[in-house]
Amino acid sequence: MPEKKKLALIVHSGTIDKLYCAFILGSTSAAMDMEVHLYFTFWGLTMLKKGALEQAELPATYKQYEEMLKTKLKEMKYPTLYDLLKRMKATGNVTIYACSPTMEMFGVTKDTLIPEVDQIAGATAFLDIAADADISLLV
Amino acid sequence: MPEKKKLALIVHSGTIDKLYCAFILGSTSAAMDMEVHLYFTFWGLTMLKKGALEQAELPATYKQYEEMLKTKLKEMKYPTLYDLLKRMKATGNVTIYACSPTMEMFGVTKDTLIPEVDQIAGATAFLDIAADADISLLV
Amino acid sequence: MPEKKKLALIVHSGTIDKLYCAFILGSTSAAMDMEVHLYFTFWGLTMLKKGALEQAELPATYKQYEEMLKTKLKEMKYPTLYDLLKRMKATGNVTIYACSPTMEMFGVTKDTLIPEVDQIAGATAFLDIAADADISLLV
Repeated sequence: MPEKKKLALIVHSGTIDKLYCAFILGSTSAAMDMEVHLYFTFWGLTMLKKGALEQAELPATYKQYEEMLKTKLKEMKYPTLYDLLKRMKATGNVTIYACSPTMEMFGVTKDTLIPEVDQIAGATAFLDIAADADISLLV
Repeated sequence: MPEKKKLALIVHSGTIDKLYCAFILGSTSAAMDMEVHLYFTFWGLTMLKKGALEQAELPATYKQYEEMLKTKLKEMKYPTLYDLLKRMKATGNVTIYACSPTMEMFGVTKDTLIPEVDQIAGATAFLDIAADADISLLV
Repeated sequence: MPEKKKLALIVHSGTIDKLYCAFILGSTSAAMDMEVHLYFTFWGLTMLKKGALEQAELPATYKQYEEMLKTKLKEMKYPTLYDLLKRMKATGNVTIYACSPTMEMFGVTKDTLIPEVDQIAGATAFLDIAADADISLLV
């Protein structure tokens, strides 16, 4: 059996636009039966706190489009960010990492994170995976 | 004849600074005779609408430098964003993809896009290419 | 002796959050004895001017967290951005490139850059390295 293709994705951003980008790349890769590694750091990490994805906003540059976009996504019955995350986890192809230095920096504790997080890890763990991945990206 | 090196670049951003970065990477790679795949999604996709590249702005963080930068680029006789796009297409090494889910999300129709777009495609098509590319980046 | 793994990282951003992300990836890779290539362009390039890293700010979207973050980093005795840069250079595994077209665009001259810069180079030089790297990322 050939080895699965591997996606290593660093999620640095915490805004709706970038999170949808990350989660669509992640869930599409997982559906294609790729092995998917999502490493959440900085603003991305803060969005793994329970209830945070539901509060995601657009960045300052595009703030004026936020209501329009949210309304459109509802009309399209597009899955929410948290739904996308749960669906990609359900494929069994996705591992979610929370960046440990960021957790210290922002005072985030393990018990406040959503249960879909698999590992709390530093950059070394992720770089080892990325060095062996077919696609590495940073959002 | 050895296979060409391949660049797979996701253009998520729609601001002048990031678009120049993407287009310089794309046109330089094309000039080096690499095979270049540019996948425009989210704000990047909206900039493929006719007349949009000419209206590109700097992001909120750097908005105050916009006039200075535009003046400098004119003084340098630096190619415009659309010129860069057309030049790299002229090499025959560049394929431009418009993200279909974004088009639905933002209500963008095919006939409003610039003619340089080669394909309307979802993330799967792009991930297949990226998994086989020598360089994958997201701007 | 096996060849070292190679990281090619484009530093386009000039804000604290993205620079820490870039410098932590760079210094961790260097500590893992990878070969690290950091190519500074656009806002990233402007932060290589003497005294600039000390003035780095958060982007508009997160501006309100700037004082809190800076205070927290001091409390944690976290290395400053410039300290991180100097430490990773000290490993001997890191090469720092300043983007020549950006220097012209922003009127930055060589003598105003920090001495840790190794080369002034265009995109071609960097793409050659990235095409051969194990991990390519853009921050």
